Amino acid sequence: MKFSKVPEATIRRLSAYVRHLEVLEEKGEVVVSSASLAESCGVNAAQVRKDLAYFGEFGIRGVGYYIKDLSDNIKTILGLNREWHLAIIGIGNLGSSLLFYKDFFKKNYKIVAAFDVDPAGVVGRVSEKIGKPVEILHPEQLQEVARDRRIDIAIIATPASEAQKVADQIAQSSIRGILNFTPTQIQMPKGFAVKNYFFTTILDNVAYLLRWRVK
Amino acid sequence: MKFSKVPEATIRRLSAYVRHLEVLEEKGEVVVSSASLAESCGVNAAQVRKDLAYFGEFGIRGVGYYIKDLSDNIKTILGLNREWHLAIIGIGNLGSSLLFYKDFFKKNYKIVAAFDVDPAGVVGRVSEKIGKPVEILHPEQLQEVARDRRIDIAIIATPASEAQKVADQIAQSSIRGILNFTPTQIQMPKGFAVKNYFFTTILDNVAYLLRWRVK
Repeated sequence: MKFSKVPEATIRRLSAYVRHLEVLEEKGEVVVSSASLAESCGVNAAQVRKDLAYFGEFGIRGVGYYIKDLSDNIKTILGLNREWHLAIIGIGNLGSSLLFYKDFFKKNYKIVAAFDVDPAGVVGRVSEKIGKPVEILHPEQLQEVARDRRIDIAIIATPASEAQKVADQIAQSSIRGILNFTPTQIQMPKGFAVKNYFFTTILDNVAYLLRWRVK
Repeated sequence: MKFSKVPEATIRRLSAYVRHLEVLEEKGEVVVSSASLAESCGVNAAQVRKDLAYFGEFGIRGVGYYIKDLSDNIKTILGLNREWHLAIIGIGNLGSSLLFYKDFFKKNYKIVAAFDVDPAGVVGRVSEKIGKPVEILHPEQLQEVARDRRIDIAIIATPASEAQKVADQIAQSSIRGILNFTPTQIQMPKGFAVKNYFFTTILDNVAYLLRWRVK
């Protein structure tokens, strides 16, 4: 199956749905209506039904969705029914925050390596912050470590000026996914999954809404 | 003017264009082609032209765009031709990273207040990290401080379980913009500009691409 026509916004919403379904599951709930799922995720019920319709027929008329089934189905669709190995490259403020961002771990993401051009300078500070010893590797080791630890996704948290250099190193490795936290638009060969996540962009979006849409 | 029909993806790309134009301006460049602007921002030239066409006619046939003019125009469109005052609520790892995320400052965003439910516990640690004294306020002071310091946008960086409580406090204040970093979908009355920025969602997006679109 290849869902190449599915809009990215749908994928983002599916991710929100599944995270909310997880919360409901933890509470022991069994069934959810599209209206309730929609409201919790800040969309309308028609949108939920439309998003899910790309992938099949999940709801039961007059009942809603079985939470566990829908959650499992969305996880299969999104590729979240497996563990993804992450590496963080650049262990400054942001990188070290990510190193102990606990939410990753319960959500099929596992940080298996951390890289910095100054491992010696970073390791003590980070270990102290995290409260346990941390291994920081030099990006020169990226190719070898990516293969040995089966790194799927590299998170780039370096200064902007270093991002393309790191991207070039990733291109030479077995890693195929990149989440780029820097404002640099990195250039990659075909065959890589790259997402940029520069939060000034989202702030700009809030500013735009304030400027034009909020009274 | 009210650009209510403009797709959000266009707004996000405008933000990327203007950030790239700033880089070109700093380099002293004067003109850029839509092809070059597009390539640097990871889209195609037709997309650039289509995005800009929502707002007017900016290019000159056979020349391209005057960088300074286009940059000024996009900033006016996005509401970036003024300063926005930010508050960070929740000064844990993420919140304190944001406190010295320098890129904000040159981009019309100014952090004017930081809040935490445990100001005394947080202030020493953060001041040491930043290398200068930092003022941390209690969220009880939010209403008063929001008005006095004209806070436009609150960034929620608390634990997920606290997000709605903070959102309710914001709803009682003069703040109208929210950037929510927690996985909680906060519920707000009408009239607020709210963006959620939970990075597991973006990771899910990379995972989806790896699962289905990258060989």
